[in-house]
Amino acid sequence: MPVNPLPAIMIEPLVRAALLEDLGRAGDLTSDAIAPDDLAATALLVARQAGVVAGLDLAALAFRLIEQRIEIVRERGDGDQVGPGDTIAVVHGPARAMLSAERTALNFLCRLSGIASATAALVAAVRGEKARIVCTRKTTPLLRAIEKYAVRAGGGANHRFGLDDAVLIKDNHIAIAGGVRPAIESARAGVGHLVKIEVEVDTLAQLKEAVATGVDAVLLDNMSVEELREAVAVVAGRVVTEASGGVTPETARAIAATGVDLISVGWLTHSAPGLDIGLDFRTR
Amino acid sequence: MPVNPLPAIMIEPLVRAALLEDLGRAGDLTSDAIAPDDLAATALLVARQAGVVAGLDLAALAFRLIEQRIEIVRERGDGDQVGPGDTIAVVHGPARAMLSAERTALNFLCRLSGIASATAALVAAVRGEKARIVCTRKTTPLLRAIEKYAVRAGGGANHRFGLDDAVLIKDNHIAIAGGVRPAIESARAGVGHLVKIEVEVDTLAQLKEAVATGVDAVLLDNMSVEELREAVAVVAGRVVTEASGGVTPETARAIAATGVDLISVGWLTHSAPGLDIGLDFRTR
Amino acid sequence: MPVNPLPAIMIEPLVRAALLEDLGRAGDLTSDAIAPDDLAATALLVARQAGVVAGLDLAALAFRLIEQRIEIVRERGDGDQVGPGDTIAVVHGPARAMLSAERTALNFLCRLSGIASATAALVAAVRGEKARIVCTRKTTPLLRAIEKYAVRAGGGANHRFGLDDAVLIKDNHIAIAGGVRPAIESARAGVGHLVKIEVEVDTLAQLKEAVATGVDAVLLDNMSVEELREAVAVVAGRVVTEASGGVTPETARAIAATGVDLISVGWLTHSAPGLDIGLDFRTR
Amino acid sequence: MPVNPLPAIMIEPLVRAALLEDLGRAGDLTSDAIAPDDLAATALLVARQAGVVAGLDLAALAFRLIEQRIEIVRERGDGDQVGPGDTIAVVHGPARAMLSAERTALNFLCRLSGIASATAALVAAVRGEKARIVCTRKTTPLLRAIEKYAVRAGGGANHRFGLDDAVLIKDNHIAIAGGVRPAIESARAGVGHLVKIEVEVDTLAQLKEAVATGVDAVLLDNMSVEELREAVAVVAGRVVTEASGGVTPETARAIAATGVDLISVGWLTHSAPGLDIGLDFRTR
Amino acid sequence: MPVNPLPAIMIEPLVRAALLEDLGRAGDLTSDAIAPDDLAATALLVARQAGVVAGLDLAALAFRLIEQRIEIVRERGDGDQVGPGDTIAVVHGPARAMLSAERTALNFLCRLSGIASATAALVAAVRGEKARIVCTRKTTPLLRAIEKYAVRAGGGANHRFGLDDAVLIKDNHIAIAGGVRPAIESARAGVGHLVKIEVEVDTLAQLKEAVATGVDAVLLDNMSVEELREAVAVVAGRVVTEASGGVTPETARAIAATGVDLISVGWLTHSAPGLDIGLDFRTR
Amino acid sequence: MPVNPLPAIMIEPLVRAALLEDLGRAGDLTSDAIAPDDLAATALLVARQAGVVAGLDLAALAFRLIEQRIEIVRERGDGDQVGPGDTIAVVHGPARAMLSAERTALNFLCRLSGIASATAALVAAVRGEKARIVCTRKTTPLLRAIEKYAVRAGGGANHRFGLDDAVLIKDNHIAIAGGVRPAIESARAGVGHLVKIEVEVDTLAQLKEAVATGVDAVLLDNMSVEELREAVAVVAGRVVTEASGGVTPETARAIAATGVDLISVGWLTHSAPGLDIGLDFRTR
Repeated sequence: MPVNPLPAIMIEPLVRAALLEDLGRAGDLTSDAIAPDDLAATALLVARQAGVVAGLDLAALAFRLIEQRIEIVRERGDGDQVGPGDTIAVVHGPARAMLSAERTALNFLCRLSGIASATAALVAAVRGEKARIVCTRKTTPLLRAIEKYAVRAGGGANHRFGLDDAVLIKDNHIAIAGGVRPAIESARAGVGHLVKIEVEVDTLAQLKEAVATGVDAVLLDNMSVEELREAVAVVAGRVVTEASGGVTPETARAIAATGVDLISVGWLTHSAPGLDIGLDFRTR
Repeated sequence: MPVNPLPAIMIEPLVRAALLEDLGRAGDLTSDAIAPDDLAATALLVARQAGVVAGLDLAALAFRLIEQRIEIVRERGDGDQVGPGDTIAVVHGPARAMLSAERTALNFLCRLSGIASATAALVAAVRGEKARIVCTRKTTPLLRAIEKYAVRAGGGANHRFGLDDAVLIKDNHIAIAGGVRPAIESARAGVGHLVKIEVEVDTLAQLKEAVATGVDAVLLDNMSVEELREAVAVVAGRVVTEASGGVTPETARAIAATGVDLISVGWLTHSAPGLDIGLDFRTR
Repeated sequence: MPVNPLPAIMIEPLVRAALLEDLGRAGDLTSDAIAPDDLAATALLVARQAGVVAGLDLAALAFRLIEQRIEIVRERGDGDQVGPGDTIAVVHGPARAMLSAERTALNFLCRLSGIASATAALVAAVRGEKARIVCTRKTTPLLRAIEKYAVRAGGGANHRFGLDDAVLIKDNHIAIAGGVRPAIESARAGVGHLVKIEVEVDTLAQLKEAVATGVDAVLLDNMSVEELREAVAVVAGRVVTEASGGVTPETARAIAATGVDLISVGWLTHSAPGLDIGLDFRTR
Repeated sequence: MPVNPLPAIMIEPLVRAALLEDLGRAGDLTSDAIAPDDLAATALLVARQAGVVAGLDLAALAFRLIEQRIEIVRERGDGDQVGPGDTIAVVHGPARAMLSAERTALNFLCRLSGIASATAALVAAVRGEKARIVCTRKTTPLLRAIEKYAVRAGGGANHRFGLDDAVLIKDNHIAIAGGVRPAIESARAGVGHLVKIEVEVDTLAQLKEAVATGVDAVLLDNMSVEELREAVAVVAGRVVTEASGGVTPETARAIAATGVDLISVGWLTHSAPGLDIGLDFRTR
Repeated sequence: MPVNPLPAIMIEPLVRAALLEDLGRAGDLTSDAIAPDDLAATALLVARQAGVVAGLDLAALAFRLIEQRIEIVRERGDGDQVGPGDTIAVVHGPARAMLSAERTALNFLCRLSGIASATAALVAAVRGEKARIVCTRKTTPLLRAIEKYAVRAGGGANHRFGLDDAVLIKDNHIAIAGGVRPAIESARAGVGHLVKIEVEVDTLAQLKEAVATGVDAVLLDNMSVEELREAVAVVAGRVVTEASGGVTPETARAIAATGVDLISVGWLTHSAPGLDIGLDFRTR
Repeated sequence: MPVNPLPAIMIEPLVRAALLEDLGRAGDLTSDAIAPDDLAATALLVARQAGVVAGLDLAALAFRLIEQRIEIVRERGDGDQVGPGDTIAVVHGPARAMLSAERTALNFLCRLSGIASATAALVAAVRGEKARIVCTRKTTPLLRAIEKYAVRAGGGANHRFGLDDAVLIKDNHIAIAGGVRPAIESARAGVGHLVKIEVEVDTLAQLKEAVATGVDAVLLDNMSVEELREAVAVVAGRVVTEASGGVTPETARAIAATGVDLISVGWLTHSAPGLDIGLDFRTR
């Protein structure tokens, strides 16, 4: 899926910090000792397995923050599907700097492409149904903005980005408030007019109470496919419905077929394996 | 595996940044609106699947940086094995703050426990052999220190922490230097006496050249079990041998049985799934 | 208005930076030279004019970050109305540190109380009508979180906190999109389910198009009271209506009487004068 | 008033932080969704009221840090007087980025221009007298350097920049020291030879004691015009005289006519309203 | 010399950064591996040579930021003279943490004590004369505030702290301005009333021009003792006189005897050797 | 000695912070007031004494971060020997900016060149022997990476960079462990395969125990030349030998003649005097 890039100002601090984490106090001992400082090289970012690319801006920045003379020519863009052996980009410049930046560039690219690929797989699984695949706040600490970006690159959509941009009333909030209705009413009274409210419900009774009280969305937590279908019928299109729990590429289609609007998946960001991408130096 | 804790000064900046990432500009809209500010609560950090715990210091800090009155009593420590349903720690304090810190605490704890658990599984797989399980530099950007800590908590050992604390001569370095021997010699001339040198070899010829030139360790890259066994015989204990590539819980034992000293596994840090741990608020 | 406090972790970096800005490279030359280091003092934070207090947490932190032995006893809280001469808090501790922190504490407290007071005046002006007073993104750079907090302390509500937590389609967006409808449709397709959409309209024709297309709120920009009344009639409660432009304590009531839901006011945060609050050292 | 620019290295961190504050974790949802990424635009920074411009470097940096291809052609410079409708600068580049940076650029520009304009009004009010208009430390936390710059752009001068670059002995210091003379003597003994000393006096007796002891300047606090005139006579040019308190565009001239050297005004930086400046996209 | 402490908020960021610089990504490998985590120890900070102590707050903070249970009991304070073998402080707490913090604590303490000691030696050399020993801006990058503090602890005084707190007109400024007088006049017109102006002069002609134009101080650069004496006579107490260049413990007295007010010494901060201080663990 | 440069990304934060430390809140008052903003100048970085240059990248960055139009043409490089009067580089650009950056550029350049020069002097003293000169962790807080770089520029080598990249077992560790052997064994068990282990020994008995247990290097602490010679004989090439303590340009040769591999010198980084380098503006 084509995806709007994040402004460089948002990703540069991350890439800078990651490079410094790797360079430590002495820099790249190996490449400094072995690679002559005037040697140029060309290398290919190559996919070693099928998936969807995400994170090229971060990878490119990793190379260029180490050495601004490095040039990156992209053959694919974020959101593009690639197959094993496909060249994603060509990197050209001083060999030493390319070697020093390689791991940081790949660490970003493989992780984000892994998230995009896992998202894309789920999106493909539900194709034909209206359900969208969305991520959660179960993201890697410090990387939320770019992980949610990767979900978009994979064709998914984003749930809230933090505690402060939407209300999500969970079971503990309901317990504290003394019920679904008072929880929703407290939330509505406490937030601004551009803040949406979603409530997690475990039962149809809670669901009906939520819809009657008035919310923007309901999170149908860990319901079976049958329960989901019934919940969708109860809601009857009045609010957005989100299914959560037990979502895998195998189960996604059946869940989507219940008619829910959204399927949220925590493991997209906390447990999706990285996509295997390598940097192949061309034979000189 | 009991593991030495990281000094708080090393982990506090990460936890602080992660909390601010989640709180955003308005804080926890939901809990602020619903939870009375004088309500106390008790909650349990509970494992939902079997694994090894890591990251309790970070989780505890997440709670206490939001609200210093929160108390955490640990029933397990980092490196401990837990089973489904086991209580890891009891958290007590103001309910609102506990709800606000919950996701950040869990994001650290689940990720690091996932790494520790995957490590422990490999460690268990090679039990009885001398081979140690080690991680790589394929870590999450910005989290290397704590992810390598998690590997230790799982009973693994750490490969180098960055480009600057050891020399690792890879295939591209060898190509640039014009051979294994000149690469090693350049490296030896360029670094201090407390820097070890490891070289990646793809063939027995390279291996022999490396051992003859003098290195501290050899990385036997993507060799079959038979090749590894032959390589170990060639080395004959003169240098540390590290096997890399294709390591899974299923293949680890056979690889270990070749007699290699180390088995390095990139996916421990880039692709291990999080361990499912939840925060259960006790019924009040 | 009682208001939920911001977590200390959110405000501490601001207070710390402000203190360092004032201490510079040599600290408080005057107080260091004159005040004996063992002299204790008591001082009162006193309102010199009527208004609403906001920012006590920041003021208290300013004192305590310089010297943790300083104690602050609050007689009023954020959101409380005060009159000239009213004591807001009593500060007790080492005199030198109190003098060093005084200006930073007051700079936060006076500014935020000024915003809260201006908000409260508008809130009072529209009392009896349903309209709420809301702020905008015209905030002081770097202080948005605390300035929006001050608006809440004054009884107002918050519009969006940034470019990323809601959609606000303005005239330039409409021009680029080629109309109200395509702008709204592009926005709806591009954002997640917890993101609300508001559109700025200048005419009744645009308003009707917006309501028909489906949005969460409409911003009625610089309309006369008559136009606002007509717009409210057109909307007929289907979406939230926000009036903007030309709002003063004198005009607010008439605007509110048109039946709009919200009245947004940029000058609350960019031009409200500080509330005059002083620190009076008690005669010793 | 022409004014020396601040080095970019001093203002860039502020602009960068302000942009990130507005972009949040997801960037500009509205413009990303609506503006095609290849659309260019031209817009004018236009004054909507009369005043003095300050902050163009910060505004320009806001645009360029988001997107370095944006070009800004200035028709006016900092310190220039503008009237309603005057074009200050022309901004040209990718439309989406211009929309994303607009609010941050204006937040800096309007605030600083407001300070410069208020300063210029006071400067105009005292024209013909020798008195200079100076600011205080009652600045917005974190923005002191640029707010004091804005005062210079408006033709004013700067009082001390912090606690550490000059001594200002206030009433509480005098009380602690046990008098004007011991306070001055302690200060003189405690600071270096390039540190000036000013003392705040409330009475002519204190004034005489200060001048006799030897200071660089006296702050005549909240004195009436008659008292100021008498104080100036007492001082007889031996030290710099500064009047403070109750300064408005209406009272400034009379205060200046007393012959004081300086008139300091806290509200220039804590309460001056922003200057209304807008960004008008040209009709396409 | 007793000296006012710097607020902890000013030194904590330096100590924190220094500890993290030493701990790197893995912490203290040696102490973690060898010292049991429950072992307590006592150690003495002992002077190995005579000198003046400075930096105890930083050393103490180094220990306590690693481990807040460490207690430091001071037997000497900053500014105190010590002899070889003198105990400066007793440190007690967990052995492992003490070992981890040792080098950082000593790096601050030895450097700052070295500066204080060198200053004190010059102060002693000029005892009986009115001349004060002052430092310059030739400080270690990032450590200016604490190095100037160390000069004060040694009994010296501080020249300006940066480019922004006083004017120092040097030879290149004079050349650009076209003479001493126009340089001073430009400076006077450009800065606020609390900014002092010093001018560097190489000849008596320049000196006379400077004094006639009106400055606060003159820097007599690299003049011989005879020239200095003549310069002091020319000045006749009208402005502060500062001698600079060629100052050593051997030459200082003769320079002071010329009657100059100040003797400035760059090497105090850029080349003073560290004072040898060690941490002796008590025999257990 | 030619030396590999540090990546700009590693040094830029230091230079940026140092410039801001000097510019403070108001910038360069003197140069702003006196130097016209369109005046160009040319100046020479000139050695005033013999030595080895180090830090040119930092000096150049200081100029260019203030004003990117400044051009620096190097006539010498880091690691080059210079004599009094030698031009190191030519700096050309706006005069005002060059004056503002001058002190920061020189503070880095003089300090690092001082370290390089002191190192080179020791290297020269031991020429002909195999011993290498190495630095320690007794570096200036926050400047370790660049000070160790300066040692390399002077022809020396680096000891470990922090607590985390090698094990150095000191006397206190041995005391805690209960002997040399258990200390080494604990360390070996606790660290990864790329971590070397060195142990400090005070006696031949300890030395023999260390060599027998197996370490990578031994630190022969404060031994006399005779003891060193005996120690070297005992070791017989089996491990790296490092002499430490009492090393001066006078004693170095005799120490080297004992056959040790390394001579470590703390004062290279904590007490080497700066090299006198000035910036001479050419007569215009």
